Parts: sequence; C-alpha cells; structure tokens
Amino acid sequence: MDIFIEPIGRLINEFTKLPGVGKKTAQRYAYKIINMSAEEAAGFAAAITDAKRKVRYCKICGNFTENDVCDICRTRDKSTICVVKEPKDVVALEKLHEYKGVYHVLHGVINPMEGVGPNDIRIKELLERIDGSVKEVIMATNPDVEGEATAMYVARLLKPLGVNVTRLAHGIPIGSEIEYTDDVTLSRALMERKSI
Amino acid sequence: MDIFIEPIGRLINEFTKLPGVGKKTAQRYAYKIINMSAEEAAGFAAAITDAKRKVRYCKICGNFTENDVCDICRTRDKSTICVVKEPKDVVALEKLHEYKGVYHVLHGVINPMEGVGPNDIRIKELLERIDGSVKEVIMATNPDVEGEATAMYVARLLKPLGVNVTRLAHGIPIGSEIEYTDDVTLSRALMERKSI
Repeated sequence: MDIFIEPIGRLINEFTKLPGVGKKTAQRYAYKIINMSAEEAAGFAAAITDAKRKVRYCKICGNFTENDVCDICRTRDKSTICVVKEPKDVVALEKLHEYKGVYHVLHGVINPMEGVGPNDIRIKELLERIDGSVKEVIMATNPDVEGEATAMYVARLLKPLGVNVTRLAHGIPIGSEIEYTDDVTLSRALMERKSI
Repeated sequence: MDIFIEPIGRLINEFTKLPGVGKKTAQRYAYKIINMSAEEAAGFAAAITDAKRKVRYCKICGNFTENDVCDICRTRDKSTICVVKEPKDVVALEKLHEYKGVYHVLHGVINPMEGVGPNDIRIKELLERIDGSVKEVIMATNPDVEGEATAMYVARLLKPLGVNVTRLAHGIPIGSEIEYTDDVTLSRALMERKSI
C-alpha cells in the first residue's frame, strides 16, 4: 500500500518538477491544492494550460508575448537594442522603468562546454535587425565566462556594421561593503575607476 | 504596460497562493511551466484538477481516500485507533511502516482563541467508533498547547468507555544534544525518566 493515494502521489510528483521543490515542499503544495475550493483549483489548472497555450515568442525580439509582436517592439524606441540571455532578464530591466529602447532575447549564451555554438542562439536574428536606424546595442548578458564571451563575440560582429556596442558596467554593488567584495569584482572596479 | 503579459502574470499570481511561495519563486515556477512541453503542462494541470476531484475523506477515519472507505480502514487491525490532527500526520506515521492499527483524523484541534470548539472537529465521530472491539486509542496530536488540551479532552471522554488511552512519548529527540535541547523538552524528559 502506498503512503499516498494515487491522485495525491501524482500531484506531489508533478510539483517536484518545479525548480528547487523537493518531496516535502511538493507535499505541502499538494495539501494546499486539496484544501482549495473546486473553483480555485480549476482556476489554478486553467492558468497553467492558458500560460502554456497563449504565451509565444515575439518574432522580432524573442521575448514572451501573446501576439506575433510584443508590446515593447510595437511601441518603443527602436534605435537602442538591449541584448539579454533570457526573458527573465527583460523583466529585471523593465522593473527599473528607465530603459526606453527595445530588447533582443538570445535564448542562451555561447557555451562550448555544453555544445552551444553561435548558431544555436538568436545571433543571426539580431544581425538581421541592424539597419541604419539602430544607434546602439547594449550587451546585457551575465558577467560570467559565457556571458562575457557572448558579449565579445556579438560585439565583434556588430562593430563592422557601424553600430555603437556597449556593455553594462561592472563594479561594486551599491550598498555593499568594500571589505566583503569578492576579489574579481574589486579588481574590476579598480581597473574601471572613474574621475569624480 | 505591465511587466508580465497577462497569462504569465496570472500564473505567477496562482503560484503565490501556495504556502511559502513569494513573487520571485512564483516567477521561477511560471518560467518552468512555460518551458515545459504542451503535454507536460497539460499533465500538470490535470493532476491538479484530478486531485481536487478524486480525493475525498474516508467516512470512517476522515483520512484522504478515493473511495468511501480508505484502504487503511478496510484492511487493518481496528482494535487500535491513532488520533491525529491532520491527514499529513497519518503520512508521517505511515512512513515508519510500524503501526498496524487504524487512524482517526480530527481535522483540527480545540483552539478557543480561534473559536474552534470540541464540536468543530471530528470528536463525535471518534466516540461513535468506540465499541467493545477497540482496545487502545493513541492520542497523536502535536505537543503544543492546543494539541495537549485536545488530547486531554478526548481522553476524559474515552476513559469512562473502558478504553485504554495513551499519548506519544515526549522527550529529547534521538540524535540531538542535551546542551541544545529546549528547557521545556528537557524538563519533560527529566520528569518522565525511565529506569534502564
């Protein structure tokens, strides 16, 4: 006899597919579902299927959208393109409410160790977007080995097209302490010091 | 313009209803759903609606079941009844594979502060189960104020019926250290010391 009856066992198993969710957490989530009203549970299930069915990728920038072209691509200044690894990076930048340009989601970074080459991510699509109207491309890939390599690779392709390629600044995070800043970041901050 | 498109925003909102899930975690879960295949996402949604639709409460013990009467009530020794607060306590005890009796789920404990009286939990149903065949009732409610009070209350009702009422032992957890044991537990362990 299993400890859990089949429908609960199956639901627990589904929840463990979510990132960082183990058996115990999945069990708590499953109990919560069972304690919901039938309408609430149906709404939850519908939100999952709807998200999967309705969410597509913008055919211009590759970000999530419900239409062919996303709201950002339709309404914003196209002379600046911010290049990111994933849709969630767009969310992080949009939260600032500061950036007025458009995005380009690569859906990955170049990573030879995992067999991801330049043709496996949306670099070709980025090059196709570069016409006379694009003034600046901001490379906002993560400051790790793969992100840096991808930024350098893309920059080298873009420069001959006469577009200004920039990179997000690296340095000591605001509010942190110099004493506890890691060596690589501190040395980078020193190297890229600015006159005040 | 919202940062999230509607289907993603709605899914994130649904995930925040799960216990301990904040905006950031819900966001990670939502991205995971969107990266699933259509079949996987449909399976996830179906598991939620199925669990809600198929899971009922055993009309004898109150535990989760797919039928009128749960497997435990149908197949196990009915002379011992273990009384617990919630279905998840049954799971914790079943994991031991040691207990051979049946259960009674109260679906709560007496808690005057929150307006939960003896008639709001399944105490009447427990009394109805007590006939000549029941030898022992094990009170396995939590060792907190409400759990203790409920155990005492139920014990007082059961004793006149000639049934042996027991309580799970309290003391120092196995593998822990005396130095770090909280005062209440330590004093209880001292009080209930046993000859060896």
